[in-house]
Amino acid sequence: MPTIVVDVMPKPEILDPQGKAIAGALPRLGFTGFASVRQGRRFELTVDGEVTEDVLAQARKAAEELLSNPVIEDVVNVAVLTESAQNESQSA
Amino acid sequence: MPTIVVDVMPKPEILDPQGKAIAGALPRLGFTGFASVRQGRRFELTVDGEVTEDVLAQARKAAEELLSNPVIEDVVNVAVLTESAQNESQSA
Repeated sequence: MPTIVVDVMPKPEILDPQGKAIAGALPRLGFTGFASVRQGRRFELTVDGEVTEDVLAQARKAAEELLSNPVIEDVVNVAVLTESAQNESQSA
Repeated sequence: MPTIVVDVMPKPEILDPQGKAIAGALPRLGFTGFASVRQGRRFELTVDGEVTEDVLAQARKAAEELLSNPVIEDVVNVAVLTESAQNESQSA
């Protein structure tokens, strides 16, 4: 069944203690190439049937109204998961 | 600065109560096109400098060792955030 991915990230002006903790842990574990880390959420919505414009519009509305908290989070991406990305995810 | 995105999702055989709760709430709020929902995590790693093969390899290793719990989660995507996606995220 087709899948719609919704990505939600904390707004840039919002503190992200989990991201900060990860950014602090990375160099201690030998990962030195990164300046900062932000942690957000990813939702995979399985679509019942075909992905029509109406379903995509529903997903965008649900992303804004149910999946994210607009006070502290931005919806950064609403997209149909492509076949190649699905294969990638299965092999990862 | 360039950004690497890491997406982590609960393994298919792992229960996902948050996803289940969202899937239950969607039809009550009028969103009827979706069969199921899974909730995972998205990390944005800001790269200090250029994205080389070495930095990408570091990101993949960090994704497996620090950002995900391999007992219950799969790393489904490690990718450089493209300019167009960044613009999209800023306009969203």
